Amino acid sequence: MKKIDFDTISAVILEEFKTYTGKEIEPLWAFNTFDVQKDSIVGFIGPMNVKIENMKDLKDVKEEKDVEIPIQSSEAINFIVEHFDNPDLKMTYLRQRILVSTAKEVIENHVNLKLKKSGDDLYFNDKKLSVCIACRGISSGKIHLGINIKSDGVPAYVSAVGLNDMGIENTFEIMEEIASIYAKEMSKIEKDIRKTLPLF
Amino acid sequence: MKKIDFDTISAVILEEFKTYTGKEIEPLWAFNTFDVQKDSIVGFIGPMNVKIENMKDLKDVKEEKDVEIPIQSSEAINFIVEHFDNPDLKMTYLRQRILVSTAKEVIENHVNLKLKKSGDDLYFNDKKLSVCIACRGISSGKIHLGINIKSDGVPAYVSAVGLNDMGIENTFEIMEEIASIYAKEMSKIEKDIRKTLPLF
Amino acid sequence: MKKIDFDTISAVILEEFKTYTGKEIEPLWAFNTFDVQKDSIVGFIGPMNVKIENMKDLKDVKEEKDVEIPIQSSEAINFIVEHFDNPDLKMTYLRQRILVSTAKEVIENHVNLKLKKSGDDLYFNDKKLSVCIACRGISSGKIHLGINIKSDGVPAYVSAVGLNDMGIENTFEIMEEIASIYAKEMSKIEKDIRKTLPLF
Amino acid sequence: MKKIDFDTISAVILEEFKTYTGKEIEPLWAFNTFDVQKDSIVGFIGPMNVKIENMKDLKDVKEEKDVEIPIQSSEAINFIVEHFDNPDLKMTYLRQRILVSTAKEVIENHVNLKLKKSGDDLYFNDKKLSVCIACRGISSGKIHLGINIKSDGVPAYVSAVGLNDMGIENTFEIMEEIASIYAKEMSKIEKDIRKTLPLF
Amino acid sequence: MKKIDFDTISAVILEEFKTYTGKEIEPLWAFNTFDVQKDSIVGFIGPMNVKIENMKDLKDVKEEKDVEIPIQSSEAINFIVEHFDNPDLKMTYLRQRILVSTAKEVIENHVNLKLKKSGDDLYFNDKKLSVCIACRGISSGKIHLGINIKSDGVPAYVSAVGLNDMGIENTFEIMEEIASIYAKEMSKIEKDIRKTLPLF
Amino acid sequence: MKKIDFDTISAVILEEFKTYTGKEIEPLWAFNTFDVQKDSIVGFIGPMNVKIENMKDLKDVKEEKDVEIPIQSSEAINFIVEHFDNPDLKMTYLRQRILVSTAKEVIENHVNLKLKKSGDDLYFNDKKLSVCIACRGISSGKIHLGINIKSDGVPAYVSAVGLNDMGIENTFEIMEEIASIYAKEMSKIEKDIRKTLPLF
Repeated sequence: MKKIDFDTISAVILEEFKTYTGKEIEPLWAFNTFDVQKDSIVGFIGPMNVKIENMKDLKDVKEEKDVEIPIQSSEAINFIVEHFDNPDLKMTYLRQRILVSTAKEVIENHVNLKLKKSGDDLYFNDKKLSVCIACRGISSGKIHLGINIKSDGVPAYVSAVGLNDMGIENTFEIMEEIASIYAKEMSKIEKDIRKTLPLF
Repeated sequence: MKKIDFDTISAVILEEFKTYTGKEIEPLWAFNTFDVQKDSIVGFIGPMNVKIENMKDLKDVKEEKDVEIPIQSSEAINFIVEHFDNPDLKMTYLRQRILVSTAKEVIENHVNLKLKKSGDDLYFNDKKLSVCIACRGISSGKIHLGINIKSDGVPAYVSAVGLNDMGIENTFEIMEEIASIYAKEMSKIEKDIRKTLPLF
Repeated sequence: MKKIDFDTISAVILEEFKTYTGKEIEPLWAFNTFDVQKDSIVGFIGPMNVKIENMKDLKDVKEEKDVEIPIQSSEAINFIVEHFDNPDLKMTYLRQRILVSTAKEVIENHVNLKLKKSGDDLYFNDKKLSVCIACRGISSGKIHLGINIKSDGVPAYVSAVGLNDMGIENTFEIMEEIASIYAKEMSKIEKDIRKTLPLF
Repeated sequence: MKKIDFDTISAVILEEFKTYTGKEIEPLWAFNTFDVQKDSIVGFIGPMNVKIENMKDLKDVKEEKDVEIPIQSSEAINFIVEHFDNPDLKMTYLRQRILVSTAKEVIENHVNLKLKKSGDDLYFNDKKLSVCIACRGISSGKIHLGINIKSDGVPAYVSAVGLNDMGIENTFEIMEEIASIYAKEMSKIEKDIRKTLPLF
Repeated sequence: MKKIDFDTISAVILEEFKTYTGKEIEPLWAFNTFDVQKDSIVGFIGPMNVKIENMKDLKDVKEEKDVEIPIQSSEAINFIVEHFDNPDLKMTYLRQRILVSTAKEVIENHVNLKLKKSGDDLYFNDKKLSVCIACRGISSGKIHLGINIKSDGVPAYVSAVGLNDMGIENTFEIMEEIASIYAKEMSKIEKDIRKTLPLF
Repeated sequence: MKKIDFDTISAVILEEFKTYTGKEIEPLWAFNTFDVQKDSIVGFIGPMNVKIENMKDLKDVKEEKDVEIPIQSSEAINFIVEHFDNPDLKMTYLRQRILVSTAKEVIENHVNLKLKKSGDDLYFNDKKLSVCIACRGISSGKIHLGINIKSDGVPAYVSAVGLNDMGIENTFEIMEEIASIYAKEMSKIEKDIRKTLPLF
């Protein structure tokens, strides 16, 4: 485990493989698992394997009712973000968009290819590269972003793509870069709000 | 004037030239000028010409104390954003980052060049392409983003670049696209928060 | 199903009979059932049949401990309101009062009779015409208002009255009118906050 | 001066005549003038005489630009409400609607006539009976409601009506009743939020 | 039961013995048990006997995993505080610190001894005198403070001290004083926010 | 100037004398003067000399109307606190109480004397030792606490006392200790909210 500490947020990078099961989206998971007592972004590589009862996006739930495990990938970069400063769901969705844009930019900078971002989804050649959800608990806002590394484990009816399909192999490095740029951005915003004159 | 209405936000595009003077950052400017009674993003092309007493970024003010008009450009795409749903300054800064990322992506999609985003600034070849501020009034959050079209009016000590220097001429189209993607994103987030299960 | 869309809220009117069981007060019910991704008011006619474990008003719960199904009516107009803009409970109670006042006014305009409003209850000739509760989930505020059409199903110890007892038969029309006036009022307030100067 | 104290709000009734000049809408006016250290509703009878620079409704300001004193009445019941619990503008507008509905109901109960409420305005026979504004300062939300007693001082281009025109003479009593019902309602809501189970 | 009513908060003092089991921290406990419909501080004397599944401080949970009942004392002064005005967790923790400081001061004033406060813990001669937790539900913030009267029931590995060990016997009086000073302080703050000019 | 950095707050200690004029309470003063881009507590020693137009406590203003400079002391320890995380006035007043309690405790620990705290005031032998105000700007909450070192400059009608009168000479050390304990407490609370299970 590698930890980069900013003033108000920690970026934690797991070196070992870990499956995303949907349990990691629960409040205080980073505190429980890694003793982090700041806001946090945790990155790890491993399969995604979410049972329908752990899904938070009701739209997906409704569309996938007849499927056993709809969020599934044999290997993915996963990020779990938790913010306690303001658990408001809209604020969490704004942060989610920033995380997805950050991922897009970092990936594009590693290959000479362009991704498409639509809402909170990333596409390459009209194929789905990622899944993402933002949600809130009573005292914190949470985000999961999963970026496929391989595309073979994804449900058949989804036209998916993985980073490997795009020729990207240094996924660990990309994961680290996304986590650290996101944490730095959040940290910078804390500074920005402390230098700005109000309007009258 | 062209207006694209989303449920909760209007994108307004001015066809005539207009100077950004810093007064446009004041609360209710879009309502006063265009009768918009939604959240809004207004785009217009024209010089930036902000007197130091209209500047909101105290860091800039401190650094530019001896300069008469530090935010200056002979021609720029300008965006004025106003949100009334939650005037919180942090939320406004999160939206600002989304606006800047949107601008970056739209510009990159129009030429085969890569920009660099650092905080709320855009750079091309280490030259500054944009200025940006987020601030809050009592009941609304506001953002100004100015993207240089020409680089000649910028203060001499700033190493600046304009869209024209990058070979981009269809600035009106780019402005329209940025405004409409930003408005669509904000509108989509309103939908997203209405389909998400809370965490327990 | 009939749907009237305002900018930020949808009014949904069910044409078929539906029982109010207390489950409808749960977050995201309107999204789950009708795919509404705005704030919403849903109106339907049918019995009220709420088990004590689904009751949210602890005062009622305490008073009715020995009763099996305390909120009960053989036929009622039911409204389910959900707002995601601010889940704060006080805000939800303020909206609840506005909904009850709207109902009172619409009903009075259809017959030449005066109702009495006390808190969130409506009375006719000192007999109880309605039940109402406001509550909050993690991300949304919810309201249920039930207006008796018939008075025969109401628990015996409550002195109840129904719209039919008052000579009102066009209950569907009244339901539609209440839902649409409430939605319009909420929509108008969104406009109002975008035309008001702050105080200094 | 008469003061009725509820737990969280005081209703203050002035016995002497007092002009509404627009200054009374400023934060802390009730504390400054009457030493009230709760939320408050202050009622007084007197002319309304608001200069355009004291107007907070920009829509009115825009429409009345060429008029000297657009909010004007030779005699009116005036209410000034201030809440410090949550200065949010939307919350203040919700309360404003409740105040206007309360006024409507009290007036209707005193004569056998029906008023019409549209947004925050009251009408009798399509003539304007009242003016109303909600606004927020940094730490409090404020409301002014003015109900014409006489209709002769109102600007000529407004088709106005006063309580006297409707045959209502006991204006002091009506004022007292509105203030006290409003205060009681706000006080009741505080109790209601302390008896309601949250949703899961 | 003794009840002292302030405008916005009630102090409730139980005269009979009562065990603290961890259930008392649940939202609306004071309403359910004592019909209090204000914010509240309830004080009672009795053992503390909290099962691990009722513990809210995850740090304690992690450290005490192998222990059956880690929060335990044969006799303690217990306070249960609930605030509905703003359920925000940080606000609840700020209030918790005020409660602990109040306890410290009242105890010190009754004997000629000095306590040490570290975070939310009180120590006498480096021995732990108290346990404390702040937490939030959906609509309210809650605090439990337990001050040991006897030290014999405390888990062996904790070096504990009780008020009796310090020569303090009038524990009922101390409990009453702490509850009433806390309630008065919260009530005074409500007044203070209604006399303060905002900053421009 | 000495600066102690915690994660979310900086404690700044001025070594040189500085007068408190009331201007220091303005938003962003610490950023403007010391380039602090965190929440902050700044401590300095010097006279207090506040003109009535710079006073924020309207109660004091009303009582001192006929006095030229009512907040006055020839030498005092001054603290200026600013928090941007939540500018809410009630939250700022809660923090103010914590600051005053901290000051009380540190002073008592340096001499064998007991102070009395009443609201936000400290007394020794019924003589006033301190003045304090909490207030909010648009985006931040601010606190000033002034603790008399000498009592001779205080207005004649106030029965005042200074730390020197109590035999305390190491005022610089006391100032430093108060600032650092306050900052540590705020920093600890940030950690505490990130280890606490929510209530259901």
